Amino acid sequence: MAANTRMASAVQILCVIAYAGRPATTAEVIARSLTTNPVVVRRMLKSMENQGLVTIRPGKDGGVQLARPPGQITLDEIYQAIEADTGIFALRPAENPKCPVDRRMRDLLTPILGATNQAVQATLRRTTLASLVDAIA
Amino acid sequence: MAANTRMASAVQILCVIAYAGRPATTAEVIARSLTTNPVVVRRMLKSMENQGLVTIRPGKDGGVQLARPPGQITLDEIYQAIEADTGIFALRPAENPKCPVDRRMRDLLTPILGATNQAVQATLRRTTLASLVDAIA
Repeated sequence: MAANTRMASAVQILCVIAYAGRPATTAEVIARSLTTNPVVVRRMLKSMENQGLVTIRPGKDGGVQLARPPGQITLDEIYQAIEADTGIFALRPAENPKCPVDRRMRDLLTPILGATNQAVQATLRRTTLASLVDAIA
Repeated sequence: MAANTRMASAVQILCVIAYAGRPATTAEVIARSLTTNPVVVRRMLKSMENQGLVTIRPGKDGGVQLARPPGQITLDEIYQAIEADTGIFALRPAENPKCPVDRRMRDLLTPILGATNQAVQATLRRTTLASLVDAIA
């Protein structure tokens, strides 16, 4: 599979915002850190705004800021913001009702993939954004 | 992101092989269960052969079989077979040495993503292929 760098991108975006501090920074500044397009950054910022992690103020005096102190943001919240309901593994659509295996996969895999997703979130919850930002010289 | 269904596909492939039992089944039969192309199935079978999960015998009497009883195959081995070294989250390439945030991300994220990957594997290790196949009527 194409390696999933969305989590790494999202963490870096929030680190840049925290590192830049006040006044608000912009998607253009963040995009330079990630060597990517501001459009990509804006799309991820929108997801993080929906999750209550950042506030975005439009206009010429606008910009993006953390919605909370970095010590109160844990990485599982960032994960939830960008992976939404998909989780790390997704089920396949059941399309072959005649196949006894295909018919059962959804029921059999749902609890396993759910447990995996919870393990990921529990692990990410142990790290705050502040612990990363404090380690950036 | 495009939801990652590779894990669900790989588990289903092995369930079909186990369910079909002996004699060996084929990529074509497996592909019908998944409603996908045999080429896709063959590529994943190759990864699972490299991991020691299946044996593939070419030729007209050939086919694919489990390399071990399903009670001795745990889902973390399937995960390792198909996700290889990538893990669930990948680091971004550091491309902006002038940015103090970008410069530090690799070192800061490596242990966190490693711990996440280990949590996923520990969770998947609790389930054997047999426990799934036994639940397929």
